[in-house]
Amino acid sequence: MRQSHHLLRISTPGRGLTEFTPRVTQWLAAQDMRDGLLTIFCRHTSASLLIQENADPDVRTDLEAYFARIAPESDSLYIHDAEGPDDMPAHIRTALTQTHLSVPVNAGRMLLGTWQGLYVFEHRRAPHQREIALHLLGE
Amino acid sequence: MRQSHHLLRISTPGRGLTEFTPRVTQWLAAQDMRDGLLTIFCRHTSASLLIQENADPDVRTDLEAYFARIAPESDSLYIHDAEGPDDMPAHIRTALTQTHLSVPVNAGRMLLGTWQGLYVFEHRRAPHQREIALHLLGE
Amino acid sequence: MRQSHHLLRISTPGRGLTEFTPRVTQWLAAQDMRDGLLTIFCRHTSASLLIQENADPDVRTDLEAYFARIAPESDSLYIHDAEGPDDMPAHIRTALTQTHLSVPVNAGRMLLGTWQGLYVFEHRRAPHQREIALHLLGE
Repeated sequence: MRQSHHLLRISTPGRGLTEFTPRVTQWLAAQDMRDGLLTIFCRHTSASLLIQENADPDVRTDLEAYFARIAPESDSLYIHDAEGPDDMPAHIRTALTQTHLSVPVNAGRMLLGTWQGLYVFEHRRAPHQREIALHLLGE
Repeated sequence: MRQSHHLLRISTPGRGLTEFTPRVTQWLAAQDMRDGLLTIFCRHTSASLLIQENADPDVRTDLEAYFARIAPESDSLYIHDAEGPDDMPAHIRTALTQTHLSVPVNAGRMLLGTWQGLYVFEHRRAPHQREIALHLLGE
Repeated sequence: MRQSHHLLRISTPGRGLTEFTPRVTQWLAAQDMRDGLLTIFCRHTSASLLIQENADPDVRTDLEAYFARIAPESDSLYIHDAEGPDDMPAHIRTALTQTHLSVPVNAGRMLLGTWQGLYVFEHRRAPHQREIALHLLGE
């Protein structure tokens, strides 16, 4: 049994879902580990992670629109606005989604379903570079 | 330290919470592993996982009604409707809940609290068979 | 490769976010484990876990207010009210957030980002003592 760590840096174009499945698949293949547990951890509180459908891009558009509706920008709703009107909605959207993903690895591959992809969900309006830590434990 | 993989197939009757704790307990007992980490992974983007109260069934009824309210079916809200009006609400409900659960195992049992049960949360109207991957790492 | 288990008891003053990062950091240091995976598991269905910003306390105030808005207390919305008007909203808030957190450990420290802290999110009005299970696997 052994472990590997890696830090991915993912550039986002601002609000919405950015797929990074190929980046993880590529790193995983290089670890030469047959069975184990992969943990994917987002080191931010204004961006998060989701496993979502990787087929129709309209799903990502609708998801972004949905979260903009349920966590709206508003002067009157929030006290905290240190970094602008998209600051507190970003923390809320992060709280409603995932900071980490755990994916079993079998026969050297993530056990994702056919339509599942890994996404960084950017919650700030501006482009950001996000740090995503990978940890693999197995043999 | 060793690992086990298993694939559960859970039949759901359509929208709502289906408990599958006994299926996991039974498989876990057969692994004869005293201490470890259990990962439960849902291989779908229109069904998800929750740990919820296993006592009063009204909790499940109220949860289903709540998610139907905050992610309503609507022609005008979504672009993506490839599989019908319950398609995009299903992706949203999945984003708001869990695709994977991690449960520590101690003395051969999951460290669930007294009132905690494991549920598949079906988000489509029709019955489905869902693939839930189990991964156990420990000794 | 080895494992450690621990049970934290966290006192909450009622609804809102209670940070417990130092309790975990302290326990982790005592385990003398360089690399691994830390799992934090909440044994309740009316309290949950979040990784959130640890700088401005206004973020916690706004998060509590947000969840009170989207899961309101109401006689007419819920069937289940066995433990009072805050009972069903507590289950909903738990479903929308996390029951477990997975944090990679590297060089003996959790791989949290600069602004990330660990929080118990209490969803009941009354103060409670919450059981949080810790599990560390690594070497």
